[in-house]
Amino acid sequence: MTAEIRNIKLTIAYQGTRYSGWQRQKDTPTVQETIEETLSDIVGHQTKIQGASRTDAGVHAEGQVANFLVESCPIPTEAFAAILSGKLPPDIAVRESVEVPLNFHASGTAIHKTYIYRIYTGHPKDVQLYNLRWQVEYPLDLNAINAAAKFLIGTHDFQGFTSAKDTRENAVRSIMNAHAWWSADASELLFMIQANRFLYMMVRNIVGTLVEIGRNRWPAEKVAQIIASQDRTQAGPTAPPHGLCLKVVEYLKNSASTLDTQARIGDK
Amino acid sequence: MTAEIRNIKLTIAYQGTRYSGWQRQKDTPTVQETIEETLSDIVGHQTKIQGASRTDAGVHAEGQVANFLVESCPIPTEAFAAILSGKLPPDIAVRESVEVPLNFHASGTAIHKTYIYRIYTGHPKDVQLYNLRWQVEYPLDLNAINAAAKFLIGTHDFQGFTSAKDTRENAVRSIMNAHAWWSADASELLFMIQANRFLYMMVRNIVGTLVEIGRNRWPAEKVAQIIASQDRTQAGPTAPPHGLCLKVVEYLKNSASTLDTQARIGDK
Repeated sequence: MTAEIRNIKLTIAYQGTRYSGWQRQKDTPTVQETIEETLSDIVGHQTKIQGASRTDAGVHAEGQVANFLVESCPIPTEAFAAILSGKLPPDIAVRESVEVPLNFHASGTAIHKTYIYRIYTGHPKDVQLYNLRWQVEYPLDLNAINAAAKFLIGTHDFQGFTSAKDTRENAVRSIMNAHAWWSADASELLFMIQANRFLYMMVRNIVGTLVEIGRNRWPAEKVAQIIASQDRTQAGPTAPPHGLCLKVVEYLKNSASTLDTQARIGDK
Repeated sequence: MTAEIRNIKLTIAYQGTRYSGWQRQKDTPTVQETIEETLSDIVGHQTKIQGASRTDAGVHAEGQVANFLVESCPIPTEAFAAILSGKLPPDIAVRESVEVPLNFHASGTAIHKTYIYRIYTGHPKDVQLYNLRWQVEYPLDLNAINAAAKFLIGTHDFQGFTSAKDTRENAVRSIMNAHAWWSADASELLFMIQANRFLYMMVRNIVGTLVEIGRNRWPAEKVAQIIASQDRTQAGPTAPPHGLCLKVVEYLKNSASTLDTQARIGDK
């Protein structure tokens, strides 16, 4: 049994449909609470986890990241992923568990996050995957969407793409990548966006705006105008949560990499 | 407004996850009840529908069939599909609505039904599609499964593949087709089975048995032995409901085809 404290980073996938989002709330099931309860059972005492991203109700994840501290626990770090996946409900899995430095915080030290938004433009009502994609009834112009997405890239004040509920004083964010493509069978438009951090509702407000542009209701330059206006009322409607999936959260090497194994051999 | 009675056949798709199966029950949501309530709202009075197949809780459909009688209703037959799809929840859609002879019964006159069962054999826990496929942790031998499936084809007493709950006296059914194949990326094994009628739990008991054979725990001939034994305790475990989807229900031309339009012009 190791007596020292370990900081363990989890990479987590979930289908968000049954949950009221990531963050723990009263009287409604959340992903955080579900994992914390399972984890507490495994380690034998109440354990809190810190998530990288507070995904909304109905939003999915393939690469959510969370970390937790554990002391005097006989379970090897790498075993947490399989043990948690085995005990969690079928819609939550832990893909990886690695040890990270004690100063690693899943929410604080991320360098960028990547989301994918799925839009289904096929005609029949999409019942089998209704909770994984936004069904849009109109044909979408991919070139127009990608021309508009180019205006997002760079460091801008994204006040115009957030929601009133976000009270953080500073809305300046850096978008490294934003582009869309058709799925192999051309029935589904996928949109990828990568930024250092996101504001509340930012991806969904961007997607809602891009769909208006893809329908040729607005020109691609509308995105630049919304950014310049810093006025939320200029942007399109908020896209629904269920098309959104948090794909990856990346960290600086020195904060997120596993600890040097050599340095720890003496402890084991 | 047409004053006469019409018998209308619906082709229905649903994700069964949120429902306690097709058939109306007390105090729990079912697909039948959900459609009946929406339909009753549309036509303005209580309306019952007859389904072709009583799918279990969690089982999906792409081609469930149901019919209902409607009298003195101004809504054109073909419009029911779109009107119902628009008002139903996102996990139920009506693909088609056509008029059929008054003696058509969705459950009574079907000539065969086709089910598809999806088995995911990839390694990571399958969270995004957990409710659409059965995740099996072992590699499966497709040739063994198809060799076993051949023993199913034909007219046999399938008592050995039903469940005690099925009290119909006669378990003789005719299977026209039963075979499995890998999906394009080889992560998913699909099994198709077509029969004149199915017994309670029959497809899921067959799939559970085929997986035992695919794991090389039993020889392919085990299927012939189970049929000969007429003993349910000989078969494998019941596969879970969520991998199963009712694909198609087919009818004899003269019972299910739309009525001759010419014959009805005088009524409109």
